[in-house]
Formats: sequence, C-alpha cells, structure tokens
Amino acid sequence: MSAVITEQSQSDTTPVPEGATGIREGAFGHATGLSCRECGHGVELGPFYACPECFGPLEIAYDFPAITREEIEAGPANIWRYKALLPVPTDIEQSPNMEPGFTRLLKAHNLGRELGIDNLWVKDDSTNPTNSFKDRVVACALSAATEFGSKVFACPSTGNLANAVAAAGARAGIKTVVFIPSNLETPKQVNSAVFTESLVAVNGNYDDVNKLASEIAGEEEGWAFVNVNVRPYYAEGSKTLGYEIAEQLGWRLPDQVVIPVASGSQLTKVHKAFQELVKLGLVEDKPYKVFGAQAGGCSPVSAAYKAGVDAIRPVKPDTIAKSLAIGNPADGIYVLDICRETGGAVEDITDDEVREGIVLLARTEGIFTETAGGTTVGVLKKLVETGQLDTTLETVVINTGHGLKTLDAVSGIVGPTATIEPSYAAFVAAGIA
Amino acid sequence: MSAVITEQSQSDTTPVPEGATGIREGAFGHATGLSCRECGHGVELGPFYACPECFGPLEIAYDFPAITREEIEAGPANIWRYKALLPVPTDIEQSPNMEPGFTRLLKAHNLGRELGIDNLWVKDDSTNPTNSFKDRVVACALSAATEFGSKVFACPSTGNLANAVAAAGARAGIKTVVFIPSNLETPKQVNSAVFTESLVAVNGNYDDVNKLASEIAGEEEGWAFVNVNVRPYYAEGSKTLGYEIAEQLGWRLPDQVVIPVASGSQLTKVHKAFQELVKLGLVEDKPYKVFGAQAGGCSPVSAAYKAGVDAIRPVKPDTIAKSLAIGNPADGIYVLDICRETGGAVEDITDDEVREGIVLLARTEGIFTETAGGTTVGVLKKLVETGQLDTTLETVVINTGHGLKTLDAVSGIVGPTATIEPSYAAFVAAGIA
Repeated sequence: MSAVITEQSQSDTTPVPEGATGIREGAFGHATGLSCRECGHGVELGPFYACPECFGPLEIAYDFPAITREEIEAGPANIWRYKALLPVPTDIEQSPNMEPGFTRLLKAHNLGRELGIDNLWVKDDSTNPTNSFKDRVVACALSAATEFGSKVFACPSTGNLANAVAAAGARAGIKTVVFIPSNLETPKQVNSAVFTESLVAVNGNYDDVNKLASEIAGEEEGWAFVNVNVRPYYAEGSKTLGYEIAEQLGWRLPDQVVIPVASGSQLTKVHKAFQELVKLGLVEDKPYKVFGAQAGGCSPVSAAYKAGVDAIRPVKPDTIAKSLAIGNPADGIYVLDICRETGGAVEDITDDEVREGIVLLARTEGIFTETAGGTTVGVLKKLVETGQLDTTLETVVINTGHGLKTLDAVSGIVGPTATIEPSYAAFVAAGIA
Repeated sequence: MSAVITEQSQSDTTPVPEGATGIREGAFGHATGLSCRECGHGVELGPFYACPECFGPLEIAYDFPAITREEIEAGPANIWRYKALLPVPTDIEQSPNMEPGFTRLLKAHNLGRELGIDNLWVKDDSTNPTNSFKDRVVACALSAATEFGSKVFACPSTGNLANAVAAAGARAGIKTVVFIPSNLETPKQVNSAVFTESLVAVNGNYDDVNKLASEIAGEEEGWAFVNVNVRPYYAEGSKTLGYEIAEQLGWRLPDQVVIPVASGSQLTKVHKAFQELVKLGLVEDKPYKVFGAQAGGCSPVSAAYKAGVDAIRPVKPDTIAKSLAIGNPADGIYVLDICRETGGAVEDITDDEVREGIVLLARTEGIFTETAGGTTVGVLKKLVETGQLDTTLETVVINTGHGLKTLDAVSGIVGPTATIEPSYAAFVAAGIA
C-alpha cells in the first residue's frame, strides 16, 4: 500500500468498478469509486486520498440502492444499521468491530431553558465504546484497511483517535501502532497503551508526529494510517451522526445544528448525510442551518467566516480544547461554504467559556463532556446571545467526547461545596438540608 | 420520608395496593407492594427497605402482565424497554432521565481463544451514560424518589454511584447531595462535582460517610438516599442486565454467567431476571450456572463459599478494586445460595491478577474496564484454570464499569513500547515495522 497514488483511473469520468485491483466483490458495499471533491476526477477504490490531477481530497462515490426507513430500523443498534450508505461490505457485522454509534439523542429541557431555546437536543457521542465520535470513523477505516489487506492499523494522535484506533485494532486482531508525542501526560498514554503493545512515543510535538506518520505511510507497504491513506473511508463514518440525528428525531431534519470544527470533516459529513437522506426520500427536504464551533485559541475557520473571506489562514493552536486544535483545517473551506449557504455561522469562544460550557452541560443535562463539547455548548450560548441562532427553531448540538479524558480542564473550577465532620450535628450546622 | 418503617402493612400476606399512601395510580407500574425476602411479610409501597417484622430486606412484589418479545423489542434502546417489569410508571420515558442501558453484548472471540472458552460474550456496561451499571439502578431510584415527592436525591459514595446520582439528579432537575470522604483524590471528586452544586466532603473514611448518610435518612424528611431508603426500587434496576443478556442472545439464557460481587445485589438480580423471563414465557427454561467474582483483598463471599459455610464473616477491605470493596455484603448469603444451587462458584484473585485482567480484556476486545471488570475477567480466567467453568458452554462475563475511572491501577504496567526521534530512519532503526 502506498500513500502516493501510483495508478491512474482508467477514465476521468467513470470510476473503475470495484474489484478491479483485487478487491473482493462487495468489499465496499455500494461505493463505486473515489471522486475528487475539487475537480470531480474519478479514481478507483483503493488506499488513495489525494486527486492525481489536482491534489484535491478524494471522497467516496456511490450508487445507492433504494432503501426504506423500515429496513434501517430493522438493523442493529449501532452504525451498521446504515451500512448500505457506507463504504463497507454487507456482512460488516460479522467482522469483530467496536459496534459504535446509535448513541443517545437527548431532549435538553434544562439546557434549553437556561439558554432560552424552545426545542433543544443533545446528540451525545461520549457514550461510544472509547467515548468519542472517533469510534465511528475508525470503524469505517478498519473495514477499509481489512479489505485492502493491510497488515498494520495506525495513527498519529494525542487523544481520542489513538484510543479508538488502539481499541478497534485490538478487537479486530490486527496489529496496531499508535504514535504519540513523548511528553504526553501519563493518563493519556495509559488510555491507549492499555489496548496496544505498540505505543510509540516520538520526541517532538504533534506536528512532528503527524509528519512522521505521513512519511511512514508513503514508505511502508501495508500500513493503513486511518487519517492519512484510508481517510476517504474513515471520514464517511461521520455521516452516521447525521443519519442518527434524523432518524432519532422521527425521520426529520432539525432546523439548526451546532457542530465542533477541528479539521471540519465532521461538519461537512453531517451536512452530506442530511443531503443523502433527502435524495433517498428518507426525510423531507427542508431548509436547515449549520453552525460551526471553535475555541478562540484555534479559530481559523471562525476568523475567516467573520472576515467574510474564503481563504483559511493557518494558526498555531493555543487552547485547552486540544481535540479541536488543528491550526490548518483540511475541510475548513467546505465548512465556510456550508455554514454560509445554509444561513448558519461559525463562532468561537475563550478557554474560560469552554470550561463554563462543560459545567453548564453537566449541571443541566448530566452529561460530562470534554473540552470539544464545552466549546460547542459555549458557542451555542454565544450564538443565542449574539442573535445568530433562532431560539424558536428546533436545534441539535453535538457532544463529541467525554470529560473523563480532559478532567484537568475543570478541576480548578468545581469541587466540594462543603467539608464537614462525620456527624449529623455537623451536617445540620452546615445548612445543607 | 423516614428511613424507619413507621407504618405497618394492613396484612401480613397481602401487600397493600398501590396508591394507598397518596401515591398516584400506576406510579410503580405493576408493582403491588414490598415483600420481605426473609419472612415474606408484606408492606405497602413506600420509601421502606427493612421488614418491620424481622428486619430482613424488602423486595418489590409484582403482578406482571402478559408481555411479548415483540412488545419489548418495539421499546426504546434503553432499560425502559423493560418498564413493564420494573417498579416505574408506564410514562417513565417522559420524565427527563439518563436513558441508560441496552449496552453492547459483544462476542468475545479473542478473549475466548485466549482463555480456551468456545463461546464467550462480554456484556459491556462501561458505555452507560456515566460509564457504569449504576446508571441502571439510579434511574429506578430516581423514579421512586420522584413518585414519593422527595426533595433531595442523595447518596454516600466514592465513585460510580456518586457519578450516576449527581448526573441523573442534574438532568431530572432535582436537588442532589453527594457525600464523599474528604481525602478522595481530586479526579474522582471532579467526576461528581461537575454535575452538582452540593458535593459534601466528610472528614472520615467511607464507613463514616455511609453511617452519616443512614443517620440523615432517618432524621430528614424528603431525602431519598438511593442505596438506603429507596434501595428496593434501586436494586431492581440491575435486573435489566439479565433481561438484556437474554434478549441480545436471541431470547435465550446463557449456560454460564460470571458477575462481580460487591454487596451481591447485582448477581441476585440477574438471576431473578432470568427466572422472571422463564416465568413470563419469554425464554425457555434451562439450567444455567452463576459465578461470583471478588478481589482477594475483599472476598468474604468467596471465603464462605470455599469454606462450605452459610455465614459471611465481614472483612476489612484492602484491594485496588474499590468499587467491589464492601466488607460486609448485604446480599452475600443470597449470592452463596444462587451460586451453589445453580452449580456455579465464587472465586477471588489477587490485585496483580486484577490488573492483568484489565489489560487482557483491553488487548483482546478493545474494552477498557475498571478494576471491578479486571476482577471479573481475572476470575473468569481462574475459573477456567481450576476447572470450575465448563469451557464448552456458552458463557457471559459482565463488565460493570470504565477504566478511565481507575487509571492508576494500570499506569504502572502499560506504557510506550518504544521512544524514538521524529524521523523515518529512527522508526526503521527501532524495528517497529
């Protein structure tokens, strides 16, 4: 497997049919090929991620079958209920995998009341197997890696992605190698090290680790780096967030959705999922607004949105929202397009507001989110305060990860409210009752 | 509300009908009263937990309706699909709650192979809303507290229970008060403090905190301590683990099930759930063996089992499996009965074996469990090695909690396997490929 595209597709317009490169029949379900998001150039299905013509990002192209709500509802309570809409084989449930997804969509009465939003929902992806939405994308990447006959399942990461890759690889029985910066805190190392015998610490920062991963992907045969050479397959996993929101609302699109932006991939895929459901006749077409959330210490997309420009100016991240800290987001320009076209917006908040967002969600809905979710909830609040979000419309906010992974963010602002001696008299004196 | 039973039931044999004490019609579904597990004495539904005749534990008595598999399957993907079999109202889904349960039952191919068990499953409760099975029991306790008009939802705890109570209370909009020992580590404090404005640190150990809680429950009106005065309702929540296992196996009981033992309540309730399903005609009757798992540093039930005696001798816990560290388990004698009657066993392992159990489950199935799960998996291994478990029979092992809460247990035994400079040459030289 090579990270460099070595084979040209046979035609610029018609992707080569599946199976052309020794891939088994139906290995990618109803996917027909890869298609460049920029120039539309077609490439056969393979471990490719950049257009050979223009270096634009490759996306999966499909020939979707007719599918009904009932067929989906009869599927398992995980992302594979949507397998017909993903680049995975029809027998995907048979392969040991993490069975992520179909997480709770909770009506957020208290948070809605607090923010003055009439009809608010939280899509809570913190209850995924390794406690973030990354289990969705990694499950799709794992399927691709397996079908390509990869011998190693790998990623560079400092957090959620490392957990998801190491866990999914362990369960699938494929060798995993996870690269992390060597100065990563011990608890974060443990979260991945517990799953894999190959946790590689690299003396450098995350950018150094990432660069090394791309180099290895380009040099080594049979290495599937989830977010590098199988990225088109990986990214499709985020569509399931959009499918689930619509299905759990009763096969209906929400009016507004607020989504955190790191690379921007998730936001674009939720939008794509909504569009696919409309095309397939599974939901009624209707206008909806997409909002992007960033932390002020890494807000290149929000900055471009506010400046009214199309180009994203890369930044050096400096925020507690580490899982959103991508200074040069690959899908940033698509995020801008979608948020502008749908009438949404991109907004950002300070680290203190991120912390407040975490506590606000916990105290109102009993959901302990990580800094990314604190960012999204904090941005939701700011969107209301600045009049950018219509509080009379049905709104969904996405929580992508778990607060247990970023405990330090709030350890300075929450704690015991009283300390007493172990006696009823002390309890009464403290005025707790 | 009083923790002391002040009202006698009107009859020793017939529980008083629901509603008798101002409880709304249907508040407890098909529950008809409370019944003493020891002497069978009947008590009306109320915030009572000890038999007024013999001080035995009170349990919920029901008059179950006819119910079909299809009716259950048409319910939500959480514990409320079994609401007809729980002491909750028929409109329970309408009250804001955590929507716990219907967690994954994963086929454990790799762990089975490793241990030599042909047909092994893991019931993974670490993906519950606050990452332990406690969300199930707390959801039932919350319903009872609400129906009794309680003004405070409370518990003494050092971990999982505190998280579950604080989160569920926040979402329900009821005042929560959580009591913890003041020397609890900061990360564990944060896990609960993030949800509640009333985290009370008590200068003492867990026993002191627990004693204070019982005192408050006895003195204060309107306080629902989940594991004290609403315990009969609370404990019923564990039945859903048994229901789900059977349903997820395709409406079939397993041949063997391995369950951790703290108070012993969960094990007895899983057994009760299996028996109820048989009685209701939802599964076929068949023999099954129930096994209990304890950590050697707190193994009073295992000790009694091995000594062949009926009495549990209380111990002073000294184990890393803190969530199992109950030295005087209330349901220990019932655990002994069930394990002996079904042909199972109770076994215990060392703390090092607990740690190995955590890593074993993570490396084989991608599930990061806490020390309780490490205990259960480690005991499963020992049961095989000692010939107590039949490796040819279908076996289910229950994982009750998440490793993110007990990171310290394994931080000394897992970590990076290599540290390299950020270059491809260094990668090659390290022999990772």
